[in-house]
Amino acid sequence: MNQITPATTAQGSAAAAQAIRLACRNGSLTGTTSGLAPGFVQGNLAVLPADLAADFLRFCQANPRPCPIIGVSDVGSPRVPVLGRDLDIRTDLPGYRVWKDGELVAETGNVSEWWRDDLVSFVIGCSLSFEEALLDEGIPLRHVERSIRVPMFRTSIPCSPAGRFSGPMVVSMRPLKPAQAIRAIQITSRFPAVHGAPVHIGHPEQIGIRDLSKPDYGDPVEVLPDEIPVFWACGVTPQSVIAEVKPSFAITHAPGCMLVTDRRNTEFAII
Amino acid sequence: MNQITPATTAQGSAAAAQAIRLACRNGSLTGTTSGLAPGFVQGNLAVLPADLAADFLRFCQANPRPCPIIGVSDVGSPRVPVLGRDLDIRTDLPGYRVWKDGELVAETGNVSEWWRDDLVSFVIGCSLSFEEALLDEGIPLRHVERSIRVPMFRTSIPCSPAGRFSGPMVVSMRPLKPAQAIRAIQITSRFPAVHGAPVHIGHPEQIGIRDLSKPDYGDPVEVLPDEIPVFWACGVTPQSVIAEVKPSFAITHAPGCMLVTDRRNTEFAII
Repeated sequence: MNQITPATTAQGSAAAAQAIRLACRNGSLTGTTSGLAPGFVQGNLAVLPADLAADFLRFCQANPRPCPIIGVSDVGSPRVPVLGRDLDIRTDLPGYRVWKDGELVAETGNVSEWWRDDLVSFVIGCSLSFEEALLDEGIPLRHVERSIRVPMFRTSIPCSPAGRFSGPMVVSMRPLKPAQAIRAIQITSRFPAVHGAPVHIGHPEQIGIRDLSKPDYGDPVEVLPDEIPVFWACGVTPQSVIAEVKPSFAITHAPGCMLVTDRRNTEFAII
Repeated sequence: MNQITPATTAQGSAAAAQAIRLACRNGSLTGTTSGLAPGFVQGNLAVLPADLAADFLRFCQANPRPCPIIGVSDVGSPRVPVLGRDLDIRTDLPGYRVWKDGELVAETGNVSEWWRDDLVSFVIGCSLSFEEALLDEGIPLRHVERSIRVPMFRTSIPCSPAGRFSGPMVVSMRPLKPAQAIRAIQITSRFPAVHGAPVHIGHPEQIGIRDLSKPDYGDPVEVLPDEIPVFWACGVTPQSVIAEVKPSFAITHAPGCMLVTDRRNTEFAII
């Protein structure tokens, strides 16, 4: 049972983030990390065999808006010290998915038994970081108010291909009033390492989105007549691109079960 | 006749700006300063008697987006050293307008004969500075391409009143494609001293603008279906507010005849 709550982890020290990882490691935290260790960066996880990892790294480097890498392991190592000195990728997330040839083969809280000496771990920035910055400045986010998932859409914007990896950019959408949209562009521009500024505003059909009420991922969120839909590049992009490649082997985080790191969201502000 | 051309003043040294002022002073430049001394800040001029100046300064301080003051003189002094050491407000603009009780009483190239010991000069930042930054980054501006004036609109956004000064904000409008609008917000956010970020995007009716094809000042510019209208606070605001007060005496620059200063546009970038 999940014994870690925001109330007990909001002390604002890196110990709070480490406590989350330890709770995952000993099996006491198995649910979502949403709302845990506020102030600390949470990351998406993608683990690939070394023969694919080089191409994937190039893909992310060429597409920093949807695929902002915040940490990469050495080949075979489950450590990413830049995100937490004690961190163990095999045990420190509450939930994982294991894939073979594009098929889900296991959903588990510990991937030690699946570990291989040729694996490379990628930790990719997540919109929770910039959403915290928006909320801290009083910009309301409807999907947060309603406790649903942000709506996400496959677009007609192609990512730059690299090796076997290619595909369309996925974006998340948040409806905002015009003055809020201007402020949100300013605020998220400070966070290029976690998706940064929006990639589009106002004309969804221009990026291949036909119906805002039918997201490809997440939940629908209405756009009111006095609002503008604002679109950010989304960390689901690398997941969807990996799924297309159907790698012989891969590990990802389970939905909502992110890696909680020792890095503060504010560290990622460039100014 | 105007013997100063962009070709002869584009050397990029402050001497270019000073040459413009000297040409005004000796009467050889009497036309618009548009396109002259590229790279250097041009300012709007408002000169008021001291008894009104304190209120006007408070008004500008309370409304920095439409009324960004970049220089103020001492009472009775025609000097604003922070904008140019040799600068003489009485002679260094190509054209002035002189007002009594709100009526235009003279249009002249030299206001020395109108000068009084109780006058205070205000130099207010101008959109030419941020437009240069936009054009330098390859963002097209339709009114520039068409060599017409930017369209400007009185809005329903009230300025914060101060003493005798109050009234609505005037905005300028530039149509941009969505990705250009996002970039333009980033770029102009760097220039808070020359109007800064837009005050509105996308929904003109929300700020009291009924018909984009009928600007209150300047020339109409069409907004194409794939574009977003982007609105910036405009330096016409202080002029329209002063006109409402009908001060006993005032001097302003003639339209298009700005004060060319020794300050570089890039100096006003906060980052």
